[in-house]
Amino acid sequence: MHTIGVDIGGTNIEVGLVDQKHKVSARAKAATPSAGPKEFVKLISKLVDEVGGEPAALGVGVPGVISDNVLVKAPNLPGWSEKTDFRGMLAKKLGIPVGLGNDVDVGLLGEWVAGAAKGGDFVLGVWMGTGVGGSLILDGQPYHGVSGGAGEFGHVIIHHDGALCTCGRRGCVEGYGGRRAMERTIEHRIDAGFETSIDEIRQKKHKGHFTSGVWQEALESKDPLATAMFRDAVTAVGVGVASAINLLDLDRVVIGGGFAEKLGTDLTSSIEEVAQPLMLRPSPNLTIVPAKLGDDSGVVGAANLAKSVVVR
Amino acid sequence: MHTIGVDIGGTNIEVGLVDQKHKVSARAKAATPSAGPKEFVKLISKLVDEVGGEPAALGVGVPGVISDNVLVKAPNLPGWSEKTDFRGMLAKKLGIPVGLGNDVDVGLLGEWVAGAAKGGDFVLGVWMGTGVGGSLILDGQPYHGVSGGAGEFGHVIIHHDGALCTCGRRGCVEGYGGRRAMERTIEHRIDAGFETSIDEIRQKKHKGHFTSGVWQEALESKDPLATAMFRDAVTAVGVGVASAINLLDLDRVVIGGGFAEKLGTDLTSSIEEVAQPLMLRPSPNLTIVPAKLGDDSGVVGAANLAKSVVVR
Repeated sequence: MHTIGVDIGGTNIEVGLVDQKHKVSARAKAATPSAGPKEFVKLISKLVDEVGGEPAALGVGVPGVISDNVLVKAPNLPGWSEKTDFRGMLAKKLGIPVGLGNDVDVGLLGEWVAGAAKGGDFVLGVWMGTGVGGSLILDGQPYHGVSGGAGEFGHVIIHHDGALCTCGRRGCVEGYGGRRAMERTIEHRIDAGFETSIDEIRQKKHKGHFTSGVWQEALESKDPLATAMFRDAVTAVGVGVASAINLLDLDRVVIGGGFAEKLGTDLTSSIEEVAQPLMLRPSPNLTIVPAKLGDDSGVVGAANLAKSVVVR
Repeated sequence: MHTIGVDIGGTNIEVGLVDQKHKVSARAKAATPSAGPKEFVKLISKLVDEVGGEPAALGVGVPGVISDNVLVKAPNLPGWSEKTDFRGMLAKKLGIPVGLGNDVDVGLLGEWVAGAAKGGDFVLGVWMGTGVGGSLILDGQPYHGVSGGAGEFGHVIIHHDGALCTCGRRGCVEGYGGRRAMERTIEHRIDAGFETSIDEIRQKKHKGHFTSGVWQEALESKDPLATAMFRDAVTAVGVGVASAINLLDLDRVVIGGGFAEKLGTDLTSSIEEVAQPLMLRPSPNLTIVPAKLGDDSGVVGAANLAKSVVVR
């Protein structure tokens, strides 16, 4: 059985035909439209046709909150109303069963069935991107909480009344470890006269933002400001990971997103160095590892979500 | 079917015969011995005889770490070796099936079957005592993590590099909200010349420690130092609760232990006031409530654990 996985990101929509062994056998891609769900349905239908095959079902990962299969909120997709039966719209248009998931949940699901989370029954996924996303697998099953809002690792508080977070609260992991928050901080510091080469690196690479690649180059050149700020980011994630382990007794932590893709085990070792002394009684089997599937985790995870819909 | 619940605390061992409706129909009690597990088995057997009835099974809550039904560690019981098959020892002596649980897990279980956690499927229990204990019910089932170490809410970090905790780490909830840590802090402050009536209250009540009752009286008399320190304790618990909710999307938080027994909804409202603005997207059904069963939660929970052993 082949199924289709759709990964809706802030920049691109990626569609893949995925086989039983979680291999992506055909792909299609388009820029994420700045329009409402109807446009997305049309575009996804077109991409599914491009990919071909005879998919039994489709799964889709959306950057938003999902409760009872309904998209409650997608604050990062302009033009999306507060509540949408996106799953129903897609199923009607395509004529196959559709599964709907949060983008980070779907990414961790991909890593769980075919990547770095494979074999773990108690897993925290931390996606370090524009924000810091989180997702949980507990007792061998994806965990969503009472109303689908679980996994907000980025808003675990590591410093009560600490740095301002992008959510407007203070002291969250994301306020130190998310690229958007880091960009705001580094711009303040550049304005305040701190010396750094990171802005030149950004310009040289023709980037409008401080991307993971820009950070990587600044870290490799041992830029002091970038190094200090990245240490703060790693510390925040490490402290949050320790809190999650003390509360949940996990066997695996998977770090994904742009930073993990660029820095791999350098990043996860630094996070582990912070977290280890703060853990009360970690399982001897606990490992902290980088995601393995890169951009494919979302597509593979979404295709796997599709399978569960068919089984139902 | 009647079962026996045994609650081993630092001060007393309480034994109760509990019916199907979670009512305690007979009781016995003794001081916790300062001896190894063998003495406990003898004493519990004696107390079970005193209670009478024809119990089908027995459940016991122990202040320690349990993994695969084996007691891995009980640091607060002097004379207990590192690893003990306490369940097996009790079952052999008594000739009935025995279930073994952590004391806080068993307390929350009691509240779940017959008290303040009843009806909740995603519950955090916070027991504010000498330390700050924690326990979780997730997706309608008690949650223990990969190796039985889950629920350490007291060691969720709310201030990276903050106050020294009794575990030797810094910034944990327990470092602000556990009575042992609070006692250490208030003694330092008294030594440093802070004015407070709490030590006089303690002496007047003939207490060797700053008990929940001593704190309550100091708070009622509006002692400024006690008030400020208790606010720090409530803040720490509130911030930790918010982090847990952001990560786990819960529908119930139950606050138990001495402070909750003395202060009830005054305590839970104060905790909610701190936590509410720090929650990202709490369930509309979320409530933060005090435990209802008082000292009985452990006995009722342990007796319920016994039932699950019989069913197996």
